Amino acid sequence: MDIEARILELGLVLPPAPLPGGVYVPVVQEGRWLYVSGHGPVLPDGSLVTGKVGLNLNEKEAYLAARSVGLTMLATLKRELGDLNRIDRLVKVLGMVNSMPDFLHHPQVINGFSNLMVEVFGEANGKGARSAVGLAALPSNIAVEVEAVFLLKEGSV
Amino acid sequence: MDIEARILELGLVLPPAPLPGGVYVPVVQEGRWLYVSGHGPVLPDGSLVTGKVGLNLNEKEAYLAARSVGLTMLATLKRELGDLNRIDRLVKVLGMVNSMPDFLHHPQVINGFSNLMVEVFGEANGKGARSAVGLAALPSNIAVEVEAVFLLKEGSV
Amino acid sequence: MDIEARILELGLVLPPAPLPGGVYVPVVQEGRWLYVSGHGPVLPDGSLVTGKVGLNLNEKEAYLAARSVGLTMLATLKRELGDLNRIDRLVKVLGMVNSMPDFLHHPQVINGFSNLMVEVFGEANGKGARSAVGLAALPSNIAVEVEAVFLLKEGSV
Repeated sequence: MDIEARILELGLVLPPAPLPGGVYVPVVQEGRWLYVSGHGPVLPDGSLVTGKVGLNLNEKEAYLAARSVGLTMLATLKRELGDLNRIDRLVKVLGMVNSMPDFLHHPQVINGFSNLMVEVFGEANGKGARSAVGLAALPSNIAVEVEAVFLLKEGSV
Repeated sequence: MDIEARILELGLVLPPAPLPGGVYVPVVQEGRWLYVSGHGPVLPDGSLVTGKVGLNLNEKEAYLAARSVGLTMLATLKRELGDLNRIDRLVKVLGMVNSMPDFLHHPQVINGFSNLMVEVFGEANGKGARSAVGLAALPSNIAVEVEAVFLLKEGSV
Repeated sequence: MDIEARILELGLVLPPAPLPGGVYVPVVQEGRWLYVSGHGPVLPDGSLVTGKVGLNLNEKEAYLAARSVGLTMLATLKRELGDLNRIDRLVKVLGMVNSMPDFLHHPQVINGFSNLMVEVFGEANGKGARSAVGLAALPSNIAVEVEAVFLLKEGSV
């Protein structure tokens, strides 16, 4: 199965890959390891999904924001790697939800990101280790931020 | 020293290893590296320790919750690895405390997790690098969540 | 370029390397990988920069606190490694700002840490992957906490 073909087949629209909003790089590669910087939910028109869940954003909207974070991260990986088929698997995810103190469904929100990864990379390679938690505040008031570690295929470093 | 024997000797009771509460896997192994998903405090009867420190949970209760997180993570590792003796050492811990903004003793709370790791794996191998911080909200209102990286023994991959 | 010489040339004053405030070690080395524990902003006199941005600390003060975190981490790395020239590059940063819910400039604050890393290790090796987010509470009310992953030079393990 070809990852790029699957993305087309699924009808996924990747937003423009964002430039770093600070003194960092989007991805660091060391050997087969890819460390991906925290990504927010960029929409196809380049705008961001903002809001705090439990205040001015509901769980379904936050789920979709988390899915947008996944699409944004794929756009970054495509730009950095050239070909998403170089990726072996998702290893680890830290999912951070812009959350009121009484909102408690962070895993359900971050599933928006994780389900997309499973759609694209498959059940075995698209599921990583994960934490999903509630943050007091996120940059520019984005609804969700996710950082991740991926692994490249052995012949693809 | 045998890790499984030491757990018996210490009289530690591991709770039932929890199933993932979302689209992720409990542990990802790549080479000798083990990435362990965020774990909450599961009690032997399968229930969770919930509450926010500084609001409806005190520091001592939170310390014990962090210890329960450690026991829960050991239960997961035992299920995934078969034998805890395959583990070489704890490498890295992110300890997240469900915390009111004015609670400031996160390291003292996460010591509940860390002391357990030292009891089980010893001083040299049970102490990892660590951050211990206060989160605005955690899933299901659990008191403490910890994610970790472990390393397997060289011959044990 | 010699890293230690550059630190002198830049006139940087490293604070005393702090001892762990809990059951953990400052740095874990595995192969070429260095996992560095969460560090706070220690001043040359050993005191900590405390406060919450948006409440009793402004963005500029928080930026300088983040820079102090960088100096503190360099002090720890110097003590642990002997020679900072053993470091190849910064791989990954998690920057945590002690933040009111309505403060949204976490990347600008963590740039205080990141700009220092670029000054010391250069543009190519001093920029890592990064997340910069707002935490509800940090230990001892420190203004900023940063944890990081560095990579050692190949011949230097």
